[in-house]
Amino acid sequence: MALDALVFDAYGTLFDVHAVSARCEEFWPGQGAALSQLWRQKQLEYSWQRSLMNRYAPFSAVTREALAYSCETLGLALDDARAQALTAAYLHLEPYPDVPAALAQLRADGRKLAILTNGSPDMIEPLLRNRGLQGAFDAVLSVDPLKIFKPAPQVYQSAVNRLGAPAARIGFVSSNCWDALGAKSFGFTVFWINRSAAPVDRLGFQPDGMLASLGDLPPRIAR
Amino acid sequence: MALDALVFDAYGTLFDVHAVSARCEEFWPGQGAALSQLWRQKQLEYSWQRSLMNRYAPFSAVTREALAYSCETLGLALDDARAQALTAAYLHLEPYPDVPAALAQLRADGRKLAILTNGSPDMIEPLLRNRGLQGAFDAVLSVDPLKIFKPAPQVYQSAVNRLGAPAARIGFVSSNCWDALGAKSFGFTVFWINRSAAPVDRLGFQPDGMLASLGDLPPRIAR
Repeated sequence: MALDALVFDAYGTLFDVHAVSARCEEFWPGQGAALSQLWRQKQLEYSWQRSLMNRYAPFSAVTREALAYSCETLGLALDDARAQALTAAYLHLEPYPDVPAALAQLRADGRKLAILTNGSPDMIEPLLRNRGLQGAFDAVLSVDPLKIFKPAPQVYQSAVNRLGAPAARIGFVSSNCWDALGAKSFGFTVFWINRSAAPVDRLGFQPDGMLASLGDLPPRIAR
Repeated sequence: MALDALVFDAYGTLFDVHAVSARCEEFWPGQGAALSQLWRQKQLEYSWQRSLMNRYAPFSAVTREALAYSCETLGLALDDARAQALTAAYLHLEPYPDVPAALAQLRADGRKLAILTNGSPDMIEPLLRNRGLQGAFDAVLSVDPLKIFKPAPQVYQSAVNRLGAPAARIGFVSSNCWDALGAKSFGFTVFWINRSAAPVDRLGFQPDGMLASLGDLPPRIAR
């Protein structure tokens, strides 16, 4: 495919957000998976709701708010130390095992690589540093200057502006189906990383490609 | 409280959306509750995501799309007849038991009453007719002419325009906490009907009042 650049979602696509469930489990045995799942769900809901309300807050704040709500819902006592430890876990998320090799291969193919993330700079920059990935990308773009979250089209437009390539020649890669379809609605060429064999969301669009892992991407788009 | 009018959310507030779970259970024994819950969750997610994508579709279409996704996720075979029967159930939702008496009391107090709903006219109008409630409101407002869903502020503004009262003198009533807080962010006086004793969502606002049922509203705002 004629793609000049690849743009990656970060949370859930490059980094496993449910890696925090081990930390949750440590604090509240038996509740780690339930807390991790509700926390992620509310984090996304709050990002959509705040965007529609015109009440943007940085993703780091939204993440803390979603944690507080989720703990209250599940009846788990959250003190400052635990809140601090759990939100700090977002700064140390592990990349999926297939990510480092796939990024290296894609870069070797000569394409520009970028991240386009809901994450605010106070979250994404320490995470990339902690994982030694700060040099793996030509650009790390956050929604933060735009004060609105995905899947608003101006978010995807910011990657076009930065990379200087037409939307259709930019490959957008996300494991979040709604993000992939938002990017498709905008005009990118879209690959949905569907690790759990989930159905395609019904939002009026289809991804251009569906892959079981990021490792399947380099051969798929080899020049 | 000095309120000139009351504006009600419809689905989940006046009408029990999980009433469709009995119909789901009839088609797929043992799966009714899971399907009903996932269907509602995806219906809301799609409304937020489509709004942010600038890809509005009427709530009737969003509801059908959410049903198709939910059945596929749960491995339930959905044919046209079942899809038709289940979406038709939305035209016959039951009001919560405390609703008719509360509406009658509020009207007797001399306030204007309105509905402000995500529902498209092809959903909300038949429902009100089927339940004999079409005469219970001075206005039935849908987001449909605005082509965006709650909690976008222009939705709440449409009720101000129609009712001709200042926002703070309009009482907004919803059992959906995010809707109540969206209305509060806009400027309404807000009552959250919290039937399940859930925590308040963390969206930067608090409702003016929290009630266990709609029946608690008339005494709370008696002049």
